[in-house]
Amino acid sequence: MKRITIYDVAKEADVSLATVSRVINDSNVVREDTRIRVQQAIEKLGYKPNAIAQGLALSKTTTISIVMSERLISYNAKILNGLMNIASTYHYNIMFHVISKGINEMSDIVESIIKSHVDGVILFNDDFTQDEMEALLVYQIPIVIVGSKIHKTDLPNVANVYVDFEKLAYDLVNSYFDKGITDISLVEDKLNMYMMNRLKQGFEKAYRDKGMEFTNYISFDDSYKNSYIYLSKFFKKNKPSQLIVSFRDSQAVAVMNSLKEAGYSIPEDSELICILNNKYLTMVRPNISAYSLPEYDMGTIAMRLLQKMLMEQNSGKPRFIEQSFSFIPRQTTK
Amino acid sequence: MKRITIYDVAKEADVSLATVSRVINDSNVVREDTRIRVQQAIEKLGYKPNAIAQGLALSKTTTISIVMSERLISYNAKILNGLMNIASTYHYNIMFHVISKGINEMSDIVESIIKSHVDGVILFNDDFTQDEMEALLVYQIPIVIVGSKIHKTDLPNVANVYVDFEKLAYDLVNSYFDKGITDISLVEDKLNMYMMNRLKQGFEKAYRDKGMEFTNYISFDDSYKNSYIYLSKFFKKNKPSQLIVSFRDSQAVAVMNSLKEAGYSIPEDSELICILNNKYLTMVRPNISAYSLPEYDMGTIAMRLLQKMLMEQNSGKPRFIEQSFSFIPRQTTK
Repeated sequence: MKRITIYDVAKEADVSLATVSRVINDSNVVREDTRIRVQQAIEKLGYKPNAIAQGLALSKTTTISIVMSERLISYNAKILNGLMNIASTYHYNIMFHVISKGINEMSDIVESIIKSHVDGVILFNDDFTQDEMEALLVYQIPIVIVGSKIHKTDLPNVANVYVDFEKLAYDLVNSYFDKGITDISLVEDKLNMYMMNRLKQGFEKAYRDKGMEFTNYISFDDSYKNSYIYLSKFFKKNKPSQLIVSFRDSQAVAVMNSLKEAGYSIPEDSELICILNNKYLTMVRPNISAYSLPEYDMGTIAMRLLQKMLMEQNSGKPRFIEQSFSFIPRQTTK
Repeated sequence: MKRITIYDVAKEADVSLATVSRVINDSNVVREDTRIRVQQAIEKLGYKPNAIAQGLALSKTTTISIVMSERLISYNAKILNGLMNIASTYHYNIMFHVISKGINEMSDIVESIIKSHVDGVILFNDDFTQDEMEALLVYQIPIVIVGSKIHKTDLPNVANVYVDFEKLAYDLVNSYFDKGITDISLVEDKLNMYMMNRLKQGFEKAYRDKGMEFTNYISFDDSYKNSYIYLSKFFKKNKPSQLIVSFRDSQAVAVMNSLKEAGYSIPEDSELICILNNKYLTMVRPNISAYSLPEYDMGTIAMRLLQKMLMEQNSGKPRFIEQSFSFIPRQTTK
């Protein structure tokens, strides 16, 4: 399946993409020893520059693919804005790929990306499995994964701009342990299982480290209507935990409405924290406490990182960039 | 400025793009009289197919540009999903262009679209002026404008999939006139002045038709925080209208919170309607009445319409497709 690309040649010869391009196009600004090294790499790998593509390459602009899940477009709008603003300063063309379960799978997207000869990829990993991501990673296109932390990889074409949700969850749980509170629930969000699993791992680790087991994982369907119906029944039967953590605005509001309707007060009977902050959390009463993430910045950093990868592939710059988060206390926490 | 394109040739010869492409590429499935007509059009217009582009055309997939305002990505997510799902069934490549005031203007986007030789454009007109749109319309690329109704145009390359917000507003106001209610306010939304102006025109026309003047247009800054601060002060000083109409979820919630805090009851003292429906309107208490628009369908219809325009330019199919809306009464209307 693997095709030999200009990136393979650059890697083999240990030079930048620009250098390989200059050698292929007979530019005379390349040193003779470098030119020989590149030509040897081309021969060794059997790389064949396509004549038409080569002609176009001289005038063409850089094309970047953005890949995300259909269900998360509105949630990723701020990161997308950061990406697009940097892309426009570099005059990049942006190809947009959306994965819709049942209509368009990762394998279709990968085929389209490879066929279109894109120069680099930004992938939002919120909603993808490891296998789905690896379907794209095996090609040696520079790729920046934005969102949550990926398993470390030795692939030189992969970078990651992320928030460490496992650490966030671990620290959050421990800060409540410090206050003597151990009855904490985490509400599942099926819209975003990749980040959800990170959070759950953070919870489990925090409990394990204190010799306890984390058991209050509340799981149900992902639409507000169903979550709300489920939670309404749930909190009429079950006493809520002292702290309830939800991932997304709509679920936090569903928890809040369900608790109120079951006769509980927030934060007196039960505190509530939403991981992802947004404006809707300040519109409901009481305002919901949350974490602020630098979403727009994550977009700009990801696009700049990709640009650097395209320019000098073996630069040795850090490719795993962690972004910090900060807690915004509002009216649902004591 | 105007370049001669394959679309000019197709129009001049009164044939489809596919036919022109076949003639240029010496396919033998074209009838002799058609071939001659196309060749005469090519000579008359001085059209010069680019050799590289011509080579690529034989193997290249169709590329569609989507143009929207940065500020509206999250609000347009459902339409975008409709567009993307149809695009993926046609195996179209999607180029994504975002306009950010001060960073990236319509003129930059137009240049990028023309240089990239895209086959067609989908433009979300929510946030653009007539002048900005015309900067793109003068090129003869097939273009479908999605959102609100545009001024009728004779340009054969322009189509429009829209909701008639002026009519919606006109009908809404008249339905309250019929109940004897004439004290109605409209809250400005600066995020979306194109649609806002349509609504305002509908209000003004409804009042004018009854020999009255519409005066309750409430205008202020566009972020929730400012709207809320403004409205909080406003409703402490001014008695609210019997019906308040806002465009967007966040403003409807700001109106609701401000009214409650000023001691008014909804819907007893003041009814509230939000034009654009979304899930947040059912999360607040009371639930806010709104209009349901077929957003996902608008996306699919727009992409199918563009596909038809690309295939057979002079098909005579309707190019102005109005979408219906329906009122969803909830707890903020009597």
